[in-house]
Amino acid sequence: MIVDVINKKRLGKELSYSEIDKFFNGYLDGEIKDYQMSAMLMAICINGMTDEEVFALTKVFIDSGDVLDFEGIIDGMVDKHSTGGIGDKTTLIIGPIVASCGVPVVKMSGRGLGYTGGTIDKLESIPGYRTNLQDDEIIKQIKDIGLVVTGQTGDLAPMDKAIYALRDVTGTVSSIPLIASSIMSKKIAGGAEKILIDIKVGNGALLQTKKDANELSRLMIEIGKLYQREVKTIISDMNTPLGTSIGNALEVLESIDILKGKETDNNLYDLCVDLSATMISMGKGIDKNEALKEVYESLNKGRAYQKFLELVKAQGGDIDGVKVSKKVKYIKSDTTGIVNKINALELGKLSVALGAGRASKEDKIDFEVGIKLHKKVGDVAKKGEVLATIYYNKEFRMPELETIFDIS
Amino acid sequence: MIVDVINKKRLGKELSYSEIDKFFNGYLDGEIKDYQMSAMLMAICINGMTDEEVFALTKVFIDSGDVLDFEGIIDGMVDKHSTGGIGDKTTLIIGPIVASCGVPVVKMSGRGLGYTGGTIDKLESIPGYRTNLQDDEIIKQIKDIGLVVTGQTGDLAPMDKAIYALRDVTGTVSSIPLIASSIMSKKIAGGAEKILIDIKVGNGALLQTKKDANELSRLMIEIGKLYQREVKTIISDMNTPLGTSIGNALEVLESIDILKGKETDNNLYDLCVDLSATMISMGKGIDKNEALKEVYESLNKGRAYQKFLELVKAQGGDIDGVKVSKKVKYIKSDTTGIVNKINALELGKLSVALGAGRASKEDKIDFEVGIKLHKKVGDVAKKGEVLATIYYNKEFRMPELETIFDIS
Repeated sequence: MIVDVINKKRLGKELSYSEIDKFFNGYLDGEIKDYQMSAMLMAICINGMTDEEVFALTKVFIDSGDVLDFEGIIDGMVDKHSTGGIGDKTTLIIGPIVASCGVPVVKMSGRGLGYTGGTIDKLESIPGYRTNLQDDEIIKQIKDIGLVVTGQTGDLAPMDKAIYALRDVTGTVSSIPLIASSIMSKKIAGGAEKILIDIKVGNGALLQTKKDANELSRLMIEIGKLYQREVKTIISDMNTPLGTSIGNALEVLESIDILKGKETDNNLYDLCVDLSATMISMGKGIDKNEALKEVYESLNKGRAYQKFLELVKAQGGDIDGVKVSKKVKYIKSDTTGIVNKINALELGKLSVALGAGRASKEDKIDFEVGIKLHKKVGDVAKKGEVLATIYYNKEFRMPELETIFDIS
Repeated sequence: MIVDVINKKRLGKELSYSEIDKFFNGYLDGEIKDYQMSAMLMAICINGMTDEEVFALTKVFIDSGDVLDFEGIIDGMVDKHSTGGIGDKTTLIIGPIVASCGVPVVKMSGRGLGYTGGTIDKLESIPGYRTNLQDDEIIKQIKDIGLVVTGQTGDLAPMDKAIYALRDVTGTVSSIPLIASSIMSKKIAGGAEKILIDIKVGNGALLQTKKDANELSRLMIEIGKLYQREVKTIISDMNTPLGTSIGNALEVLESIDILKGKETDNNLYDLCVDLSATMISMGKGIDKNEALKEVYESLNKGRAYQKFLELVKAQGGDIDGVKVSKKVKYIKSDTTGIVNKINALELGKLSVALGAGRASKEDKIDFEVGIKLHKKVGDVAKKGEVLATIYYNKEFRMPELETIFDIS
């Protein structure tokens, strides 16, 4: 009986593979209702899952859809995934870096959800850029330029997709077992042999503590072992937004600055270098220090930026068409002091309020709007100085200064 | 934001009155969906609620519907509620006992849900018995004979009703805060000044441990204080079914036997005497021992049974029309020994399988079917002896002997 299985999880008992299989497939079949699944998800969020349960759920997710296999077509491919954060445009930067160093990258990305943006939304701020490549186009492009960044092809882990949509509206997103099975099922079904996961921790991320991030890392590596996938993780801070821009076109422009070597003194640059070197070392089977050298060389010689231009051109985009709104407002400091904190979560909320993200799944995104930060943590801010520029098109409520910046 | 409130409860934090008010009323308004409410209910089940939260929820339930007031119309009225159990027909017995001792009883009862039967279903096995009396009929009858047992009048705590239906199908029934606010909101809205709660504990009940029962008792007494209601509780065993019959017509016939004094040596008789004496002592403000004497006298002199007949007649019922099925099967002992246990939950499941209860809310009840036990815990059973008679109309799967009886 359906309710007996929910009760079992409510009491914190372990579900068998068969119970998980029946319950979750019952949901796809319509036998189990949204309200029953959300009760189960909440019980999982609070009571957790054993490793065996997570393995079972991951398998059920994978088995619900297509499973891709690039073996013999693209060799040495490394996939990268981020658990999502405010201002996270790393894919736009590390894809070109890694590909320019000779490691093929096929990145199937998603759209933004909650307060965090999505790579596909960002790329669509480039007029003409196609995010719906077909399998044959992907294979041709990877052979031509070694780099593809597109929306998900095939029907990978459709059950996870259905469940994710429900989690997003029922307060059941922040669960390590659910995050692990959701990410890993998509990566495994997507055919990646080597997977790098960027786990974000902080107030602008799903996970709030280092301990949770370590547990998620452990669990994903364990799942990878079951499917003979090499999984590495990097745990990175998400209390402060990544880089200086939040908003789709703004983030594309910032990515170009990083690729051109114009901005090197910030957390985004550092993280991109670290992720790229790890991916290259995984892809080529070389030492990370050696890979680091290749990364710097590619950036310094402009090869990474050239690869980015090749990518945009190959997928039909016009990089000169990227536009930000001409309507701006400024956040100014009301005191002189050191910038102690910049609140990523509040900036995420503001970006959604501006229209840069979606409040509900039906919302259309305004690519031109967003926030550009002029100060980073540790900088001195003077009274009256502009801390951030807000690019807007529709009216919005200006946030209180202190919700975003902590200056003293 | 809806999800923020769910997240707060998921993390075990206390919700404010205003958050509870908005969330639960948002559900009635359709703004909050079933799947969001069930996630919230599961979080409440697992993380609990503070007393303040329970008080808030009870108030929100009460405020969602009509509030009855019998002051000046019926004085000294005592209401009684049972948290529900297998074979619990106490209302049919104590109503007449208490009324025959001069304490007016207006009992608004419910239908069965899950594996436990409901008083209204049982009474409807008496042909003609009306369970939908109107307010003026209730007042006339209480003045005429001092006793009414009918379905709920008015629209008492409709929000609780909506939530209960959802809890029943989402594994979120067994929560002390939710049980307390559900019961107390209906009792307070129903206008009772004095309330006796029969809290069932055991495998055939919502609560499994004495500790939980004590906590529920404490919470209901606290809620009562806020509304100036005198609340007493009795905690009674529900590992073993109450009395010897399960099934609607069978339980009416058993009630008559108890009222006639034919069966006095079982747990049902003892509990009915205890509950009746407590209600009378509350209603008259007399000592419980004194009230006990009145109970025995009423039973011995046949006054309680006469009151039962008056009740059935007043509400249009024909007591001679109560029928049980002629098709029977027997559960026989396969060994000789002492009956150590009789499993109330399994008997509840069997009664639903026979059609005596509802598997889903749309099911029609078969009044004629059920189970009659011929042994009680502590009795000797001989090999081949009949332990129980099953009255049935449609085919059913005969349960394994040892799932119901433990004999050794």
